[in-house]
Amino acid sequence: MSANGVLVVVSGPSGVGKSTLCKNIVTQVPGTTLSVSYTTRHPRPNERDGVEYYFVDDARFQESVREEAFVEWAEVYGNKYGTPKRQLLEALQKGIDVLLDIDAQGAKQIMERVAGAVYVFVAPPSLDVLRNRLCRRASDTPEEIERRLHKASDEIANFKAYHYFVRNEELLQATKELESIILAERVKTNRLDPEFLVENGLVEPVTMKKIAT
Amino acid sequence: MSANGVLVVVSGPSGVGKSTLCKNIVTQVPGTTLSVSYTTRHPRPNERDGVEYYFVDDARFQESVREEAFVEWAEVYGNKYGTPKRQLLEALQKGIDVLLDIDAQGAKQIMERVAGAVYVFVAPPSLDVLRNRLCRRASDTPEEIERRLHKASDEIANFKAYHYFVRNEELLQATKELESIILAERVKTNRLDPEFLVENGLVEPVTMKKIAT
Repeated sequence: MSANGVLVVVSGPSGVGKSTLCKNIVTQVPGTTLSVSYTTRHPRPNERDGVEYYFVDDARFQESVREEAFVEWAEVYGNKYGTPKRQLLEALQKGIDVLLDIDAQGAKQIMERVAGAVYVFVAPPSLDVLRNRLCRRASDTPEEIERRLHKASDEIANFKAYHYFVRNEELLQATKELESIILAERVKTNRLDPEFLVENGLVEPVTMKKIAT
Repeated sequence: MSANGVLVVVSGPSGVGKSTLCKNIVTQVPGTTLSVSYTTRHPRPNERDGVEYYFVDDARFQESVREEAFVEWAEVYGNKYGTPKRQLLEALQKGIDVLLDIDAQGAKQIMERVAGAVYVFVAPPSLDVLRNRLCRRASDTPEEIERRLHKASDEIANFKAYHYFVRNEELLQATKELESIILAERVKTNRLDPEFLVENGLVEPVTMKKIAT
């Protein structure tokens, strides 16, 4: 009912399952796409260039920063992450909803710069469960894991900066909640163009004039 | 995540399919119930007392008005409709989401009196389609139908008073949209009690104190 897509910022602590959730949505919900970020971090096993991230070196990343090609960028644990501007705007203008899977620092930048986006915080069932998940992933040292947990606690306490809070206890349920958020946002009245009502014969010509004034 | 249920006011023109939509939700979505209104209008074929409405006479209705037993009541086309207060509050307090299937006049009263409710406007695909539906229902005279259509046009033009706009073109899709609205509203951060985060081990004790202050 609206010309533009919804920008859905999906954030939350590292290891909470944001990317799996986003991948599920893009596969299951027509009219959605996932923004692919640039990063200077090294690919993890199974990560492919151009799918999970565009993996670039620091020089290339800095060039994009200078060209203002990022909506936001941040350095997290020594690695840089950036959201490319052009692809994102093009998709939104086509009416496609764009999911942005970013950390809390990146989300904060979007909040300051972009109007009308929807902010979803993804939380673990508990910090203990998150600790177990991070240990199983085995890509961090024990010290890094404790640092991440402390940061996660701070981020969760800041939940009010977001519109929605999805607790990823059960992936199917969390996916359904994220899908519901997107479908509900699509039918919000603040996205409804009065022209749509006129074009679709939903209001009489005489009422049309009342809306216009 | 919140102790209280969500009050979902489902309104829209007569004949738009509000009650079918609400019935679908109550059957398909656990944790939802439908508020049954009192009315002085005569039952249509297939309508049962205590299911679609409580059918009462005018004296009994006036008694309930005097006892302030209604959240709202209105007279529409010579018939009175009222939403009973007690059942509604009891369900919400149990954490059950309550759907209220009422006309625009009733919705307006709720907007003025109840805080925190969610307002969904259900629209027909077009006024022409609505005219056909009303003719098929055959419970109104042609004059009544034209009067209803004119009123529908005015109500649709007032869509901004509502949070969501569901166009009931295809019942399955409209049901899914209404379900999504309810599920999304449940996970809104403004419904999230910070106590919940503490009790579920989602924030560290030190962060707990930061939230409290």
